[in-house]
Amino acid sequence: MATPSFATRREFLGGSSLLASTMAIPAFATRASAEETPLASWHDGPARNAIVAFVERTTGQGSPDFVPPEERITVFDNDGTLWSEQPVYFQLAFALDRIRALAAVNSGLAGIEPYKSVLSGDPAAIAALGEMGLLQIVALTHAGMTTEQFQVQVKEWLKTARHPRFDRPYTDLVFQPMLELLAYLRANGFKTYIVSGGGVDFMRPWVETVYGIPPEQIVGSAIQAQFEIDGGKAELRKLPEIEFNNDGPGKPVAINRFIGRLPVFAAGNSDGDLEMLQWTTLRPGPRFGMIVHHTDAEREWAYDRDSKMGRLDRALAEAPDRGWLVVDMQQDWKTVYPFQM
Amino acid sequence: MATPSFATRREFLGGSSLLASTMAIPAFATRASAEETPLASWHDGPARNAIVAFVERTTGQGSPDFVPPEERITVFDNDGTLWSEQPVYFQLAFALDRIRALAAVNSGLAGIEPYKSVLSGDPAAIAALGEMGLLQIVALTHAGMTTEQFQVQVKEWLKTARHPRFDRPYTDLVFQPMLELLAYLRANGFKTYIVSGGGVDFMRPWVETVYGIPPEQIVGSAIQAQFEIDGGKAELRKLPEIEFNNDGPGKPVAINRFIGRLPVFAAGNSDGDLEMLQWTTLRPGPRFGMIVHHTDAEREWAYDRDSKMGRLDRALAEAPDRGWLVVDMQQDWKTVYPFQM
Repeated sequence: MATPSFATRREFLGGSSLLASTMAIPAFATRASAEETPLASWHDGPARNAIVAFVERTTGQGSPDFVPPEERITVFDNDGTLWSEQPVYFQLAFALDRIRALAAVNSGLAGIEPYKSVLSGDPAAIAALGEMGLLQIVALTHAGMTTEQFQVQVKEWLKTARHPRFDRPYTDLVFQPMLELLAYLRANGFKTYIVSGGGVDFMRPWVETVYGIPPEQIVGSAIQAQFEIDGGKAELRKLPEIEFNNDGPGKPVAINRFIGRLPVFAAGNSDGDLEMLQWTTLRPGPRFGMIVHHTDAEREWAYDRDSKMGRLDRALAEAPDRGWLVVDMQQDWKTVYPFQM
Repeated sequence: MATPSFATRREFLGGSSLLASTMAIPAFATRASAEETPLASWHDGPARNAIVAFVERTTGQGSPDFVPPEERITVFDNDGTLWSEQPVYFQLAFALDRIRALAAVNSGLAGIEPYKSVLSGDPAAIAALGEMGLLQIVALTHAGMTTEQFQVQVKEWLKTARHPRFDRPYTDLVFQPMLELLAYLRANGFKTYIVSGGGVDFMRPWVETVYGIPPEQIVGSAIQAQFEIDGGKAELRKLPEIEFNNDGPGKPVAINRFIGRLPVFAAGNSDGDLEMLQWTTLRPGPRFGMIVHHTDAEREWAYDRDSKMGRLDRALAEAPDRGWLVVDMQQDWKTVYPFQM
């Protein structure tokens, strides 16, 4: 991992952090520092200009659109918005790797589902497992252990797993321009939240180090958990039942429950973010909606309407009328990943 | 050892606030100001000393029990811990008043339940409505409207309703020593959260003004909500279905989901706080558990094991073994309510 020059690592990491000091997850996030030009990986052009103009008019003293610091709430989808989500959501890659690891230590599993399909490595076979199969995979890989044990597994996986296309840790596949956007917003007094369909327990072990977003600013999906006392120690045991699916219309509901303030800025990349974009922008006052459009098959991936993962159809169609910024990854970003710098 | 610093007024109110400037809710909270000694309404004695000792050993530079600022998470129950909860939970008082208001504009309702029992004013008749009756009351008073409309109703109620015993706004019945404790903790870098069985939408309209706790640090129960777009404006409509009951073992689950860090300090007053106290203290590292024991029938109320509201039995029995501080309201507090100062 590179040792970038950064004077404000502490700021970027959201303050000194127990997590940061005990984890060995690559933190390319630190490349965006206050010393550098803000949004340096964004081409000079309408996208970058729109962001800067919004920040200036909402933070400039005396501006008619001034937003007080405590109301500067920004919400970001994660998969496909802050990091890549192809060829499968990275949390699913984690789950499939766990299934393989379980089968490796218990050879009797190889003949039964969902192990069989997962071990075949055939995407069609995995897809054919359907919703029940996916729930089974979640139950086998995310439940039956304590939240602490689960987070240890996530950290271990991030250290060892490699993305199939780039042969790098998954946390390397974060978007440099979005890291800069997070840092730029925070430097201007905005509070950055993740509001993701991904599991909150899956994100917490690495999000602070990688994005500088602390655990209490991560809103995600969750499976149920059960409180128990084991040997005098309190634990939460994860159960194989969905508690909340933080996707689509669930996102505004969760934003209301967790944050209790209306965001002024929302960024997403798929129809799963449509209602979050609507909730943020179809309200009085200055508002900003942004869609990351995956248009760069060479440096990342190109997909939208016909994609199964991160499908972007209705939100893209609505964007012009709503005034949402559609970021063209290929045109607007000088760099996609930090390791390409 | 650190010299504990005092809260400034601005800090106490959680920064300048749109809410604070547009609401007319009495804010006695401001009585704890920088000019005063911290915990001034606490008698000099073991309870006050235990709190100060904990804060000093967790914040003193070089202390073996030093807790970094970002880990200084504290969680407070609300009903019976930060304000009174007798003769009924104040949120229930709100609901009953709403039922009366609905019946007043529609006289046809007076003969049917739950209106009939509520209008009778007979506590036994209201209690006899049972769980179904209470859910009906919630459905009639908390659902069918947008979150915004609901919060307007709560604000209106707080302006006009008077507590039956003290003939004062309900928000006057907050505990002065607890306001000082919140301020003292924040002045020493602790982040104060409410983790209450009460409804999050019921608390948000007034908690920031009264306790200095911002909306994003309020964890509560919730009914379901539905996203909709009405006349080009995004709304959340509250539905008559419980989404999450933030009580008992639900509190650790919610703390994990919302905050994602282990609290170092928890305060409650009933068995509904037992698991939160366990989750906070039955973990490695410096931890503090505190129970507000209602022992003061003269200035407030005296109840514990046999109470229907805020019943304190198992948690009180466990307190000595767990080392939890049991605050004796009568013995430990010079003042209960700010208006008694």
